[in-house]
Amino acid sequence: VALVTPDLDASVQFWRDVVGLEEVERSGGQVFLRAWGDLEHHTLILEAGSEARVDHVAWRTKSRADVAAFAEILGHAGAQLTEVKAGEELGQGDAIRFSTPGAHCFELYYDVAKPPAPEGRRSALKSNSFRAWSHGISPRRIDHVNLCTSNPELVCDWLSATFGFRMTELIRLDDGSLAAGWMAVTNLMHDIAVMRDANGEPNRFHHIAYFLDNWHDVMRAADILQESGVPRDAGPGKHGISQAVFLYVTDPGSGHRLELFSGGYLIFDPDWEPIVWREDELAAGQSWWGAELAGVAAMDSTTPFGD
Amino acid sequence: VALVTPDLDASVQFWRDVVGLEEVERSGGQVFLRAWGDLEHHTLILEAGSEARVDHVAWRTKSRADVAAFAEILGHAGAQLTEVKAGEELGQGDAIRFSTPGAHCFELYYDVAKPPAPEGRRSALKSNSFRAWSHGISPRRIDHVNLCTSNPELVCDWLSATFGFRMTELIRLDDGSLAAGWMAVTNLMHDIAVMRDANGEPNRFHHIAYFLDNWHDVMRAADILQESGVPRDAGPGKHGISQAVFLYVTDPGSGHRLELFSGGYLIFDPDWEPIVWREDELAAGQSWWGAELAGVAAMDSTTPFGD
Amino acid sequence: VALVTPDLDASVQFWRDVVGLEEVERSGGQVFLRAWGDLEHHTLILEAGSEARVDHVAWRTKSRADVAAFAEILGHAGAQLTEVKAGEELGQGDAIRFSTPGAHCFELYYDVAKPPAPEGRRSALKSNSFRAWSHGISPRRIDHVNLCTSNPELVCDWLSATFGFRMTELIRLDDGSLAAGWMAVTNLMHDIAVMRDANGEPNRFHHIAYFLDNWHDVMRAADILQESGVPRDAGPGKHGISQAVFLYVTDPGSGHRLELFSGGYLIFDPDWEPIVWREDELAAGQSWWGAELAGVAAMDSTTPFGD
Amino acid sequence: VALVTPDLDASVQFWRDVVGLEEVERSGGQVFLRAWGDLEHHTLILEAGSEARVDHVAWRTKSRADVAAFAEILGHAGAQLTEVKAGEELGQGDAIRFSTPGAHCFELYYDVAKPPAPEGRRSALKSNSFRAWSHGISPRRIDHVNLCTSNPELVCDWLSATFGFRMTELIRLDDGSLAAGWMAVTNLMHDIAVMRDANGEPNRFHHIAYFLDNWHDVMRAADILQESGVPRDAGPGKHGISQAVFLYVTDPGSGHRLELFSGGYLIFDPDWEPIVWREDELAAGQSWWGAELAGVAAMDSTTPFGD
Repeated sequence: VALVTPDLDASVQFWRDVVGLEEVERSGGQVFLRAWGDLEHHTLILEAGSEARVDHVAWRTKSRADVAAFAEILGHAGAQLTEVKAGEELGQGDAIRFSTPGAHCFELYYDVAKPPAPEGRRSALKSNSFRAWSHGISPRRIDHVNLCTSNPELVCDWLSATFGFRMTELIRLDDGSLAAGWMAVTNLMHDIAVMRDANGEPNRFHHIAYFLDNWHDVMRAADILQESGVPRDAGPGKHGISQAVFLYVTDPGSGHRLELFSGGYLIFDPDWEPIVWREDELAAGQSWWGAELAGVAAMDSTTPFGD
Repeated sequence: VALVTPDLDASVQFWRDVVGLEEVERSGGQVFLRAWGDLEHHTLILEAGSEARVDHVAWRTKSRADVAAFAEILGHAGAQLTEVKAGEELGQGDAIRFSTPGAHCFELYYDVAKPPAPEGRRSALKSNSFRAWSHGISPRRIDHVNLCTSNPELVCDWLSATFGFRMTELIRLDDGSLAAGWMAVTNLMHDIAVMRDANGEPNRFHHIAYFLDNWHDVMRAADILQESGVPRDAGPGKHGISQAVFLYVTDPGSGHRLELFSGGYLIFDPDWEPIVWREDELAAGQSWWGAELAGVAAMDSTTPFGD
Repeated sequence: VALVTPDLDASVQFWRDVVGLEEVERSGGQVFLRAWGDLEHHTLILEAGSEARVDHVAWRTKSRADVAAFAEILGHAGAQLTEVKAGEELGQGDAIRFSTPGAHCFELYYDVAKPPAPEGRRSALKSNSFRAWSHGISPRRIDHVNLCTSNPELVCDWLSATFGFRMTELIRLDDGSLAAGWMAVTNLMHDIAVMRDANGEPNRFHHIAYFLDNWHDVMRAADILQESGVPRDAGPGKHGISQAVFLYVTDPGSGHRLELFSGGYLIFDPDWEPIVWREDELAAGQSWWGAELAGVAAMDSTTPFGD
Repeated sequence: VALVTPDLDASVQFWRDVVGLEEVERSGGQVFLRAWGDLEHHTLILEAGSEARVDHVAWRTKSRADVAAFAEILGHAGAQLTEVKAGEELGQGDAIRFSTPGAHCFELYYDVAKPPAPEGRRSALKSNSFRAWSHGISPRRIDHVNLCTSNPELVCDWLSATFGFRMTELIRLDDGSLAAGWMAVTNLMHDIAVMRDANGEPNRFHHIAYFLDNWHDVMRAADILQESGVPRDAGPGKHGISQAVFLYVTDPGSGHRLELFSGGYLIFDPDWEPIVWREDELAAGQSWWGAELAGVAAMDSTTPFGD
């Protein structure tokens, strides 16, 4: 995820020193970060800009050929495609950018560098890049993104039809409309969630999530956040939807929201039927215990996508 | 703590099956319970009555002679004393009852039975009575009581002067009055807390607390409570005062409140100075993270003391 | 996994009362069990027999047509196929059975019942079947199997060529031979592991693993096991390979081994290169901390596959 | 505890950077450290010396007058007393030093500085000094010491008669001798343990223990230690005696041993009877689960007391 922030120093301090992501490299005004269990060059880019916005959300394809194949599919469907040449984004090969029906900028890539961490910070485990627990909250890896839009059904249908995302859980309001959908192409219960924007905006960002191995680690995160003075949005609590333990917090430099996320369930069933939460079950679905989330203004979408 | 409940069956189901205390014995309409790490005959008595009330809170003296010695001190001070003969309360020796300046009924005893748990439910560890984790939330032991009164300063001064309770933390309002005090005669940061009653009542009960070894166990408790349908009052969260992780829940049978309590700090300093929380620090003192507590009506005192 | 045990009562007591799996149904001398997060009819079958053995390990295909497709592939390759008609195994549709090159009996099925748990034991979460934490250790779901054989390379190559299992980590001895391989078709770092049998047997069972959400839950499991008198084989500890926290324990009724398994990492990289552990790294790979595993006789394979 | 180390840099790196104690001050070749929950000036002193040894173990009295009172008692009993004038040990008032019957050097003091942590590292909680979780393992506070001697009964009797330590648990061998005793003057189940030295030495150090709030934190500690390359002696595991979760590790600079210690039980009973572990129960008493401790040479005493 590439985030633009009006206060780069404050944002770097938050994501690196408080959250505990590792700074991999700086180049061209961009700061590239990843968690200790992320092997790719970066899972987060921070860049200075006049206003906070999400530049793009990137997805890796299953093969190199898939990038071109998706370009063709998207082109036929009338999408405006932008080519991103290898190296334009540090550590990344040829890629394409385009918009969702909600005007969220997505990127597809396959080739990506997996640089080892420098000596002294490198994990002795080859399945990790950096050492865990070296500073801050220290999540393991990126988990998912959550986007807001004026018409979730439109975006979810497009994700399903274009990329094969399966719906795993959803909120269906009494008027029959889809308030939110959780979708995945992996065994995670969601790689992406799409929610109705409280203000009717088409292309907003709700949060990026990083994963912690244990519920307890989320409580330790709350300790660290409270001592650091970073205000928490909500939690620790547990979602009914996803069964994950969560803590929401906002980058003081940009207003972008982070979800610290642990537990949850995986889906191995090829015939999974989406779990439907009705309007009267919505509060329990959003927060099984630990926090009120439904209708909390503090939990509305944060920043827009855009140039 | 001896609690009277208008729905004994519902209360037993809550404290035994959901909370996971062990039923030691039933006699004379009373149900005697303790946690797996409690060695005394009981730490909780449930008894049927037309209305929920706290019958008494009992404290063990350091020696047998102390019971009589305190009787003399209290008598000289004008307290009305009731003798409780050995065996009147099951498993307990000679005791005395009397009231705090807030009309909370207290009991002092020294002799007490420490019956082993029955075969099959007995812990292989001699330092425990029952096996841990056998059912429900399964706290280790009783921790403390929290009482409400119209004049906390009066009650705290009396606890200090009469029994030697030391103040460890307190809330001092801007008008100079004491809103709440935490006091101990052990290394716990509090054996008792006394808080100003929201409705000006002199003799109310706020909660009894049972201790869990790990913060994580409080999250597991939230899972169990949510599945059991018992409504939580607040939490999981962490107190600034005491540093303990908490979860408040109410016995559906009686309205008595339970705090599930973990972590916190111990005090070994003979020259400990009470930590003072001012009115503007009160919210953080009550909830360091995880829940709003200050001024939450749901967190007001529950039942009265009385006959 | 279908296990035959010489002492069915002791085995049921272990898997149901100590481990905390749920008994779904009994029929024809078989006891069908699953964890609270398992939605299929069963993930474990216990059946009485004169000697402990593994009857079969079953895998679900991605579609109904895949069962027949694999039957054709396997038949062409000369495998002896046994048809299992819908209903022969309770809750399961048409299936086939056949042997690995190591003579481990495998089953493929697609159709399977997903019965809800009975009222009172059913989770309020639709993504679970039973309530969590109701008794015993209470793992979430089945995780993986680990098999022993005289020639791991042969079995791993066959798993890769026939079913598309990808190798994720492996142990390569100094003589160039493969001592063990971890393989997956999901995002788990392994659905199956294949290890060299200490006694050169072709078709042995090492363990079945059930998953717990938190490392702490593995410590709680150790408490429960120690109180129940069930001897632990090794752990709690953490694997270097998989990064999972583990605890090995043996069913006292049968000698079949269970691994309680938590944490670990997921693989989303389409270009994952297997992590190679050399002979001198083997001890750290097997146990990153907490237990010696390399060359521990107590950790040899347990029971054979067979009729 | 004041430790002398032949490699001060390596020892500081271990206790400060890996264990995560806070360096309070350096003066006169001594490095003063404390945990984030320790309020006194220091709980550990490191000092360079040609050989590793324990300089002294210090205990705080309950009042200022107690220091002189104990000096008189000890003098009458024939102990050789050394006065330590206020300021000779940084942050400490007048103190006395003397030896146990096993020639372990003890110190008694009352006056002690409680300096706040510097801005930026100071906890927002007044009940802590430093911020928790800022680096390394990050234990809360010092917990206890464990000493070895040739005649544990002699030392335990002296601790009881001189200072009023109560025995809480003990190991009694088949020949009637006391192999080890756990003793306390606080509600902790032990402030000190005294064990028979494997080599018959009178005055050896077994370990100093620091406390962590949660069992899980001990597992996180094992991760950190394994990545740092510091060899663990034993654990994580759980003691039968004390019920605490433990992890033993040795300072690579000095050979002094640290126990990371969590959980355990408190004793509030004035009539506590020591729990007796017989020779055939010794293994379970030392390790309830997770590690073999009985007779493990790696777990023998480490360094001597002495000048």
